[in-house]
Amino acid sequence: MTTETFAAQITFIMEIDRLKHVLRRNPLLDGSRRENSAEHSWHLAMMAMLLAEHANQPVDVLHVVKILLIHDIVEIDAGDTFLYDRDGNDHEQREQRAAERIFGLLPATQRDELYTLWREYEELETAESQFARALDRLMPLLHNYHNHGGTWQEYGITHDQVYQANSIMAQGSQTIWEYAQTIIADAKKNGYFPT
Amino acid sequence: MTTETFAAQITFIMEIDRLKHVLRRNPLLDGSRRENSAEHSWHLAMMAMLLAEHANQPVDVLHVVKILLIHDIVEIDAGDTFLYDRDGNDHEQREQRAAERIFGLLPATQRDELYTLWREYEELETAESQFARALDRLMPLLHNYHNHGGTWQEYGITHDQVYQANSIMAQGSQTIWEYAQTIIADAKKNGYFPT
Repeated sequence: MTTETFAAQITFIMEIDRLKHVLRRNPLLDGSRRENSAEHSWHLAMMAMLLAEHANQPVDVLHVVKILLIHDIVEIDAGDTFLYDRDGNDHEQREQRAAERIFGLLPATQRDELYTLWREYEELETAESQFARALDRLMPLLHNYHNHGGTWQEYGITHDQVYQANSIMAQGSQTIWEYAQTIIADAKKNGYFPT
Repeated sequence: MTTETFAAQITFIMEIDRLKHVLRRNPLLDGSRRENSAEHSWHLAMMAMLLAEHANQPVDVLHVVKILLIHDIVEIDAGDTFLYDRDGNDHEQREQRAAERIFGLLPATQRDELYTLWREYEELETAESQFARALDRLMPLLHNYHNHGGTWQEYGITHDQVYQANSIMAQGSQTIWEYAQTIIADAKKNGYFPT
């Protein structure tokens, strides 16, 4: 290793401390505060480690974990984008610029590795990215369910919007999507969606 | 998979949301608030992914990442233990009971896997656990350095205590320990330790 390589890695590691300040819309399970994107990423990496057997296709667990650890880092510059409030071009451009700046702090090989992992997650063409996406959808569903509606109530998100946005889970894991459907049905029965 | 297996996994995944409420002593880099153990675990997993080349011996990166993702989960029951304020037996007993209860929520195979990873981290006999420990020491050092003393000032921790507690880094990574020594020396020069 060169000192320069190590210094660049440390610069990046310090920079991403800022992900702990990016607040997501959904509350924690106990409803006490909003979740931040760093602790969310930890939770998803844990889920990848524990639920990999439920992926539709065999997945490389380290690869899924890497995708999930880095998938939200662009939010440091671009902010969290609410699943039900994406504004197309501007959102994508902001994230693209963020990826170039933030991953660009790393030595070239790692810059390219993280950029490629992030693009893979956006493009959703591999078993690993599809499984990662299923996990990324499941957790806020659980957070909102256990808060009797959470952001669905707060932002007027309907049952049909939630069902539609989460159906992408099926690409990565039929098991998780089947479970999610029971949660969504139960949320409807309990009146957790705005009317 | 059995429905029972999946249900147990989800129960565990919901339970560990509580790690987001466990506050560590050290502040975030910008000093705005204390760090929680979930976001800390994310940061360490990122470091493992990026700094693995600097381990003294070749390490299995997924194994290091798993250790770091789970290493603080016992704090959900046992609380965070300050590096400079460990009280021996009681601390260990509380963590042991926590590991049994929390990992015990999982299906038996995964319960045993996580328990074994946690013990490996406590026992520090493998290259992976030693490297993981080096990372776990480095980050609070950086947090305190960039806060001009942080918890060292707050709790009266001296230069010699910090040097001693961090020298264990050398087991996992000479490169990281050499870097840490420059940080500690600079902190001393700048008067960041209490006098």
